[in-house]
Amino acid sequence: MPITFEEAIATVLALAREPAERVVPLSDAAGEVLSADVTADRNMPPFHRATMDGYAVRWTGGEDARPFRVIGTVNPGDVWSGKAGEADCIQIMTGAMLPEPFDTVIPVEQAGTASDGQVLFRAGAVAGQNIAREGEDAKKGDILVPRGTLLKPRHISTLAAVGQWDVHAYSPPSVSVLATGGELKEPWESATAAFIRNSNAHFLVSALKASGFSRIAYLGIAPDTPGEIREKVRAGLSSDVLLITGGVSAGEIDIVPECLRECGVEKAVHKIAVQPGKPIYAGRSREGCVVIGLPGNPVAVIVHFHMLVLPLLRKAAGAREYLPQAVWLPLAGDAKNKGERKKFALGRIESAEGASRVVEVVSRGSGDFVSASKADGVFEIPMGTRRLPAGTPVRFYPVF
Amino acid sequence: MPITFEEAIATVLALAREPAERVVPLSDAAGEVLSADVTADRNMPPFHRATMDGYAVRWTGGEDARPFRVIGTVNPGDVWSGKAGEADCIQIMTGAMLPEPFDTVIPVEQAGTASDGQVLFRAGAVAGQNIAREGEDAKKGDILVPRGTLLKPRHISTLAAVGQWDVHAYSPPSVSVLATGGELKEPWESATAAFIRNSNAHFLVSALKASGFSRIAYLGIAPDTPGEIREKVRAGLSSDVLLITGGVSAGEIDIVPECLRECGVEKAVHKIAVQPGKPIYAGRSREGCVVIGLPGNPVAVIVHFHMLVLPLLRKAAGAREYLPQAVWLPLAGDAKNKGERKKFALGRIESAEGASRVVEVVSRGSGDFVSASKADGVFEIPMGTRRLPAGTPVRFYPVF
Repeated sequence: MPITFEEAIATVLALAREPAERVVPLSDAAGEVLSADVTADRNMPPFHRATMDGYAVRWTGGEDARPFRVIGTVNPGDVWSGKAGEADCIQIMTGAMLPEPFDTVIPVEQAGTASDGQVLFRAGAVAGQNIAREGEDAKKGDILVPRGTLLKPRHISTLAAVGQWDVHAYSPPSVSVLATGGELKEPWESATAAFIRNSNAHFLVSALKASGFSRIAYLGIAPDTPGEIREKVRAGLSSDVLLITGGVSAGEIDIVPECLRECGVEKAVHKIAVQPGKPIYAGRSREGCVVIGLPGNPVAVIVHFHMLVLPLLRKAAGAREYLPQAVWLPLAGDAKNKGERKKFALGRIESAEGASRVVEVVSRGSGDFVSASKADGVFEIPMGTRRLPAGTPVRFYPVF
Repeated sequence: MPITFEEAIATVLALAREPAERVVPLSDAAGEVLSADVTADRNMPPFHRATMDGYAVRWTGGEDARPFRVIGTVNPGDVWSGKAGEADCIQIMTGAMLPEPFDTVIPVEQAGTASDGQVLFRAGAVAGQNIAREGEDAKKGDILVPRGTLLKPRHISTLAAVGQWDVHAYSPPSVSVLATGGELKEPWESATAAFIRNSNAHFLVSALKASGFSRIAYLGIAPDTPGEIREKVRAGLSSDVLLITGGVSAGEIDIVPECLRECGVEKAVHKIAVQPGKPIYAGRSREGCVVIGLPGNPVAVIVHFHMLVLPLLRKAAGAREYLPQAVWLPLAGDAKNKGERKKFALGRIESAEGASRVVEVVSRGSGDFVSASKADGVFEIPMGTRRLPAGTPVRFYPVF
């Protein structure tokens, strides 16, 4: 009996090992997973900072009632010190440190020239206006980006601000990719008669790279003979993860699970109640290499790279959040399922003023990679549900 | 008067030049933009293909009425030929070419053994079942992936299948990054007193890399003196695009636009009715370098890298679709705008069973990069709108 997709993913995720750690330069850190909390090395902002170009005053409420004497200028980076009376102000630029005893900034646009060395404000001020106060965003020692965060460029901004040039990150898993199938030719070879080109392995290599995994070994194509498959499997087991396409379904020639057993790989999952992807295999070698056997169908490979393999790889890379995030959106039309398995249907988001909906990308089956290339992701039709009428909210995973 | 964001982006996009073309290997093609249509080199599928492991028969409707004689086996890649009577069948594997005169595949699960060399089917068959028919996904010559497509891994599958090992792609623009500001120290330097660390330039370099732009020159920090700014600007103008942070607002020290003028850059945009990002500058040099001047505020830089700079870079890279795609989702709470400008508010998607909503990430202003690091994107509050009540559908751009 196939297990549910939920059981399968829980089992596969449990196969992931704890990652090692290393240091990467900040310039290469996007796509890495933090192995230590990043904390504020100072208060943020580290000082009262002007947020407008203008004049710093000591607020009294009578700013538009009399001229102010300009007794200095503070540029960003400057530390100004001096004595200031109630009718004294300093010119201050955005980003500069507000010096004592000033507490309020009046924008340059509201200032007119008065007599020499003096300025007249055309509007009143609110006490403390146009100041970002020391520590209002974060306090020294606060955790700004927690351990286990998959770093996006937006986090790089924070890491740079607190001086994290050497970033402590987990070591992502190394991955081998093996295609099986006597019908396969490489894209650089001609393919005639009953041959087709190997698209799955090149998709996988490309998707791994795009997801930030750089230690990739492509093992080529193994024809459907046990000796050749075992030889390449043994090479692949030296990686942290081995991805195999083809050779996992029910027929006599689907010999990958048997070859894996002979190579010492212990089976954890074989057959999942999911469409596409029913024949998926997962296991682990004695040395700890996690092996995922995907079907030869290109649509199943594209879907389950994102829904099953990438969660495993992210978890093995130390990420705190590794499951794909769904957005609930209504279906544009009816969607069908045979009912006995969970279905991941191809889809894309279509938006009109005020509403976004999920449009199913009609596919002629799991061999139809042309349709898959037009989808932005998948939506879920639960096991047991045969039909979802238009308008039903569905979980859409915009993962492609 | 500031122009609208819509006018600004139209003006900025018009500055992009036509890209050159080159050839990249398929293994590096994800993230590139196709410069020529990719067409089917054969019908897809190229032959009638079995989609299940089982037995190929000539359908009569009486498949479960008598035993069939097994006269051969077809594995994937094999071309079988022979004569077959009405009660003859061949064993066939998923992915194999269905030979004449067979037209239907009965799954192996429905087959039982009869006497030697014969097979008995436990269920009837539908004519043509379990066959993917030649050409049903695409015909030879059909455009499968059009020119101008930003290639994702899902497209790599299609390109591999039609033998596109050498991929015709546009040449993406080279980009220089320059930070200005006398208050800035680099992340590897200590920052005390009125100094802060340069986070914007390192965000930009990281975001460029993550978006697939690899020809990046980081020009460092120019203090707020015209001579140093001009020198670095001149170096940056040799790139296709020059991104500058800081020095574009209203104060006397915001001297970047003036330095750019002196370096022969013609202004196209300065000040946009948008929050954050009002002081944004755009121009073009005589040689065709597009210069974008962003404010020094980290939130404005993060937002407008995605909303303004990346659309420019994608268009300059030849992409057909270069604007960020919004998804309409209801607001979880009230959202406010000062009203006189369009606002891009920080947000993230929160989902509960059946519904996803946009939650505003509260920020203390455009210097608050700590908040920005917690957002997944921005949502739009139109110019003229001061308040959107909870439940209002908004355009959410999941771009961070």
